[in-house]
Amino acid sequence: MDRPYVYETDGRAIYQQSFAMIRQEAALARFSAEQEPVAVRMIHAAGWVPLADDIQFSPGVVTAARQALERGAPILCDARMVAEGITRARLPANNPVICTLQDERTRALADAMSNTRSAAALELWRPHLAGAVVAIGNAPTALFHLLNMLQDPSCPRPAAIIGCPVGFVGAAESKAALWADQPVPCLVVTGRLGGSAVTVAALNAVAQRQEI
Amino acid sequence: MDRPYVYETDGRAIYQQSFAMIRQEAALARFSAEQEPVAVRMIHAAGWVPLADDIQFSPGVVTAARQALERGAPILCDARMVAEGITRARLPANNPVICTLQDERTRALADAMSNTRSAAALELWRPHLAGAVVAIGNAPTALFHLLNMLQDPSCPRPAAIIGCPVGFVGAAESKAALWADQPVPCLVVTGRLGGSAVTVAALNAVAQRQEI
Repeated sequence: MDRPYVYETDGRAIYQQSFAMIRQEAALARFSAEQEPVAVRMIHAAGWVPLADDIQFSPGVVTAARQALERGAPILCDARMVAEGITRARLPANNPVICTLQDERTRALADAMSNTRSAAALELWRPHLAGAVVAIGNAPTALFHLLNMLQDPSCPRPAAIIGCPVGFVGAAESKAALWADQPVPCLVVTGRLGGSAVTVAALNAVAQRQEI
Repeated sequence: MDRPYVYETDGRAIYQQSFAMIRQEAALARFSAEQEPVAVRMIHAAGWVPLADDIQFSPGVVTAARQALERGAPILCDARMVAEGITRARLPANNPVICTLQDERTRALADAMSNTRSAAALELWRPHLAGAVVAIGNAPTALFHLLNMLQDPSCPRPAAIIGCPVGFVGAAESKAALWADQPVPCLVVTGRLGGSAVTVAALNAVAQRQEI
């Protein structure tokens, strides 16, 4: 390479080339027209074409999440990195982005519940949960606790769950439970992969149809 | 599984089990004693054992970065998700965490440079760059621009570069350039993988020896 290094410096061109590479390399045929751009953006965030095989959409989840956002639904995030990554300019209704992990009540709730702070934080979601879009990109315990909360018929229902916690203990299991239960429309990355960047990418893609 | 779902709710146990699984599954033998815990935490963040094969440490980078942090060095981040993920409680000297991407001057700089905002933001790092720890987890253009800045012998030198931008256009190329140049000690994830979570994990592991 030439020094100083010469590289693509046009952000729009970088996005276009990236999405074109993904569409050339990834196995996207099983996705519907509304699912495909969401999957492409998730693969883009991961830098990992085979992620395509792990992405599962329940019927209607993209439309359900998008319509909820257009109605002004809040976005409930398990981690600050998820909340931070959501592109506010893409949101259709200046939607509130809520993360209760650092709320001053969360530590005491976690102690009382004998659970993680990530799970306890969801108790503070209850006033916001009806019709919300949930984005879990970090903690399997948060997703497990949400599923347990939704076992109670009186618990408010979110409009959609993006469930992509990452890791080695509980991640695959919590996402398998979500996929088996499907208490509401959901989008998951099965197995160990996932994470805040992939979750954010899914949410951002759902929020706005325009790709770039 | 039983409903309500039964799962590991002890955060400390989750970490311990996760790290034990990684140490059982991953090929870590080529890492030194100071590198290994950093690699484990990066694999943990990715949820992806084969990441081990893509992690490259230049000699002394862990010590260089740790000593810089102990001296109070600022941490310069290319993206807000990186800055947000750094665990402040692990930092040894209440180190400043700086991200200039959203600085009001960055857009005009980008226009003047005909480059991305991610690259232009680094021009605002110059007063903080001497002895700093750089954490690039998102934008290949930021890493390329840093390498070009460092071609100038009068540009201040950071103490270490964690260079893990992710993606399809320029990511592999910018990290290959960093690895070839090694203007200062560096840690890279070669190829397309990387990202904010992996970068944050590396920084957090460097910041504190204690694993959990």
